Amino acid sequence: MKRRQFMGGAATAAAAGAVAASSFPAPAISQGLLKWRMQTTWPKNFPGLGTGANKLAEFIGAASGGKLTVEVFGGGEIVPAFETMDAVSNGTLEMGHGAPYYWVGKLPATQFLASMPFGLNAQEQNAWMQFGGGQELADKIYKNLGCKFFVSGNTGVQAGGWFNKEINSLEDYKGLKMRIPGLGGAVVKAAGGNVVNLPGGEIPPALQSGAIDATEWVGPYNDLAFGLYKSAKFYYYPGWHEPATLLDNFINLNAWEQLSDDLKAVVAAANGYVNTFVMSEFVAKNNGALNTLVSEHGVILKKFPDEVLNALGTLSGQVMGDMAAADALSREVMDSIVAFRKQAIAYAKVSEQAFYNARGLPFKWIE
Amino acid sequence: MKRRQFMGGAATAAAAGAVAASSFPAPAISQGLLKWRMQTTWPKNFPGLGTGANKLAEFIGAASGGKLTVEVFGGGEIVPAFETMDAVSNGTLEMGHGAPYYWVGKLPATQFLASMPFGLNAQEQNAWMQFGGGQELADKIYKNLGCKFFVSGNTGVQAGGWFNKEINSLEDYKGLKMRIPGLGGAVVKAAGGNVVNLPGGEIPPALQSGAIDATEWVGPYNDLAFGLYKSAKFYYYPGWHEPATLLDNFINLNAWEQLSDDLKAVVAAANGYVNTFVMSEFVAKNNGALNTLVSEHGVILKKFPDEVLNALGTLSGQVMGDMAAADALSREVMDSIVAFRKQAIAYAKVSEQAFYNARGLPFKWIE
Repeated sequence: MKRRQFMGGAATAAAAGAVAASSFPAPAISQGLLKWRMQTTWPKNFPGLGTGANKLAEFIGAASGGKLTVEVFGGGEIVPAFETMDAVSNGTLEMGHGAPYYWVGKLPATQFLASMPFGLNAQEQNAWMQFGGGQELADKIYKNLGCKFFVSGNTGVQAGGWFNKEINSLEDYKGLKMRIPGLGGAVVKAAGGNVVNLPGGEIPPALQSGAIDATEWVGPYNDLAFGLYKSAKFYYYPGWHEPATLLDNFINLNAWEQLSDDLKAVVAAANGYVNTFVMSEFVAKNNGALNTLVSEHGVILKKFPDEVLNALGTLSGQVMGDMAAADALSREVMDSIVAFRKQAIAYAKVSEQAFYNARGLPFKWIE
Repeated sequence: MKRRQFMGGAATAAAAGAVAASSFPAPAISQGLLKWRMQTTWPKNFPGLGTGANKLAEFIGAASGGKLTVEVFGGGEIVPAFETMDAVSNGTLEMGHGAPYYWVGKLPATQFLASMPFGLNAQEQNAWMQFGGGQELADKIYKNLGCKFFVSGNTGVQAGGWFNKEINSLEDYKGLKMRIPGLGGAVVKAAGGNVVNLPGGEIPPALQSGAIDATEWVGPYNDLAFGLYKSAKFYYYPGWHEPATLLDNFINLNAWEQLSDDLKAVVAAANGYVNTFVMSEFVAKNNGALNTLVSEHGVILKKFPDEVLNALGTLSGQVMGDMAAADALSREVMDSIVAFRKQAIAYAKVSEQAFYNARGLPFKWIE
């Protein structure tokens, strides 16, 4: 603990800021210069996820005019990736960047925030957060972890994962050693899979060594960056288990509460910007990466059969229902999302989904 | 012109800011307090659109710690709604909030920015803006209007519009007096319609008086607010003409360039936040509004027949191709969007669209 106490803590950082400010003219001192540290669960500069966190830090520094600067560390640089929440909770770090289901060991309800199998897509999830009570529930959950919560990116519909055998029925999950976090992992476990969770950086060697048989990560853009095609040949879609996984920016609650109102607004606006920025990068880059995987690396793209998806849908309902029955906070989040999803599905049928269908009609548009 | 010159201009506003600041202590003066005025094309506080503009102003004021405050005026409060761009271009106002196709009379290319019939949905349009060259093209176009450009909201897939007769073939558009702006309007005109554009506030009386036979506006949430159901009974979907209409925040270029770097970042981040916020409000509210329209007001919800959508798709391609051939800047925007759309469609098939289909399978989820 000695090293951590030496390296950080909100109080230490604030003190360091005050010392640094003493050589500035009076207005700079009165503004209070803060230097924070953020560790991500992602490898440093990892495409989309890590670079999204970099963008967040960059925007906070720029929009605050340097009043609050955030130094970014990759997973493992200060503490192991999955201990990022501990480090932020106890004040070793002021900020972290990851995904809610990584904190399931502390609070099961975080999984329901991250993404629900067959639940909301990214557009719907943002709407639930901002107008469906999501932000309030997330803040309630993260307060228990000693943190303030922000949505700070979204992957959209993920890929279904990498396998070395075909998935033709639910039976094919039996005994499968698969890396899959969150509620999707709970569903695969209920189907007989041997489920593990690993931070991103540990997935490629685990798949290569055979420590795991299968994995999901994010989507083509990120999966190509990890070279997962080297150790598995079948790439399945759609990502039923994570139709929209939100990234979390969590802030030590004491550090957050000490921010002035303008810096709080800067952090909120920067996260709002980065949320769409991260999603946009995936939308812009996934298709090219998928083409590279298929045409240059011989990956075999396959759709989960409807029979399998249907069985996974039923199983997802049972598994999540059981988990929510065992934990009141999970139940509260689940009930809120279930209600929001009902109206979202109804409206998608006359808007987004109807438009996808119309756009797919055989007319000649513009070449 | 005298009144406008008296009332505003970036230089005048800056001078006024300096005068106001003279009663503040030294640090306030050194920060430079700016007071800007923004007029929207929407009625003041109009749900989603006007309230989105309010949110933008609120965030800019909060995140800048009051260094830049923006006072919001509804369409017509300072100049007529569709003269908002003139007022911002000439410095009467520093900011405006509307939609790009309202400026078609000045530059045709603005229409291609707003939304292309059968083009991109909101998620794809954001990605094109941030990673497909859209922001750069938009800045190039708006520079010609003397403005800096930001995306500041999105309606998502709009509703198809309000009619008093059924649309069973392309022939049914012949002679129809319809309010429909942008490229969708050009397509309806090519189909024989008598097309007009009106700012939002003028639509309800025009439809009620019979000055127009049909109109589109936004979607259930906004259309209910205008009471359009009182004057038309058929409500069509999907909005093939505007699959994702972005809202523009345009800023007088001189005023923009005089901002410090931190205030520029504040404005960019606030727009990023508001972009998703506006979209989220529609996703959260449209379904409830649609239910009210159908069950309380007896509106008849109808899907455009595939035959009509297919014919409109072909016609859209021809009309937009002709328009782009006549204007180099339109051509440049169109070509960029067409290329982005091709890869977006390919990827949607294995992600968003495949997920909508999977979610629609008959499994029992959570009640």
